[in-house]
Amino acid sequence: MRYSAKSLETLIEEFARLPGIGKKSAQRMAFHVLRRPAEEVLPLADAIRDVKDRVTECTVCGNISEGEVCLICSDEKRDRRVLCVVENPVDVVMIERTGAYRGLYHVLGGAISPLDGIGPDEIRAAGLMERIRGGGIGEVILATSASSQGEATAHYLAQLLAPAGVRVSRIARGIPMGSDLEFSDQVTLQKAIEGRKEMA
Amino acid sequence: MRYSAKSLETLIEEFARLPGIGKKSAQRMAFHVLRRPAEEVLPLADAIRDVKDRVTECTVCGNISEGEVCLICSDEKRDRRVLCVVENPVDVVMIERTGAYRGLYHVLGGAISPLDGIGPDEIRAAGLMERIRGGGIGEVILATSASSQGEATAHYLAQLLAPAGVRVSRIARGIPMGSDLEFSDQVTLQKAIEGRKEMA
Repeated sequence: MRYSAKSLETLIEEFARLPGIGKKSAQRMAFHVLRRPAEEVLPLADAIRDVKDRVTECTVCGNISEGEVCLICSDEKRDRRVLCVVENPVDVVMIERTGAYRGLYHVLGGAISPLDGIGPDEIRAAGLMERIRGGGIGEVILATSASSQGEATAHYLAQLLAPAGVRVSRIARGIPMGSDLEFSDQVTLQKAIEGRKEMA
Repeated sequence: MRYSAKSLETLIEEFARLPGIGKKSAQRMAFHVLRRPAEEVLPLADAIRDVKDRVTECTVCGNISEGEVCLICSDEKRDRRVLCVVENPVDVVMIERTGAYRGLYHVLGGAISPLDGIGPDEIRAAGLMERIRGGGIGEVILATSASSQGEATAHYLAQLLAPAGVRVSRIARGIPMGSDLEFSDQVTLQKAIEGRKEMA
């Protein structure tokens, strides 16, 4: 036997199921739990339960929420004329982190991927159209990923939105900041040239 | 606001308190908890609670235990004539992992460090002597760390044990396996030369 307490062994196994956590990190985390006072580490156990108990989907945008309507959709200070369409809730976090966007979101819950049996009905495309029809939205930013599925989804939505009379834009694809051209793949470089902007 | 659900934000903060976990890993772990079914992730919450509720110290060796006596001390198959003295419970795990040791342990709960106010009374030195006096032990392996505190502790215990008539050994210090001499520090290299062994 490797551990003299079964519950510690179980905790290491459970930590090791988390993404990116190997046996060694899991062991370090478990010993941290063992060593630190209960009032310092039990909040983690509570937080895990709380997320599973409380988090649902926003009925408006499909983002994660603790109520019917998420904190972003119900924030009076957000610009309600712009809608940013993303694949997953984590994408919202990444965009919010930039601090550069003050509009609302629409979370599709995935991207179109015929090979995986995911068509327009499996993502919240109809819900998006419903929001547009509801009025007041002037621009839709398609911020699906730069993968083939993300691109296909953006193209599909652009066609769907064309008759609605709203401005439809796609986030820029190009060389990531801080990166050398030398290490960019052909498709990224091509997109970067196509998407070039005049420098005044 | 960065997250549209407060409980998710709390979970990320709690994950980020774990050792070696940055904000980015914490976020990935929290979204994993969010996405995966409850029956897959709630066991982690339970495991954290269980460790805090159940794990205490073995009254014999000072190692972690779920009962009065730990699983190693109560294992009839272990060699009761040999005692390996370590600083912390995690050291027991590391030695058990080698599979090379079949004796018992004595966990000091730290190392002598006068600067931190930790003297012989703050580590389980008296408990070690009591076990030796109890009889039946033929060898004590001092496996405290190779730090100055660990070395000082080993020297102190060696002196303490000298009159007891048991064999006292110290684990070897030397070049770690797979390591070049080029990258070894002077003290390690000195210890490696001092501790040289004839090759048949």
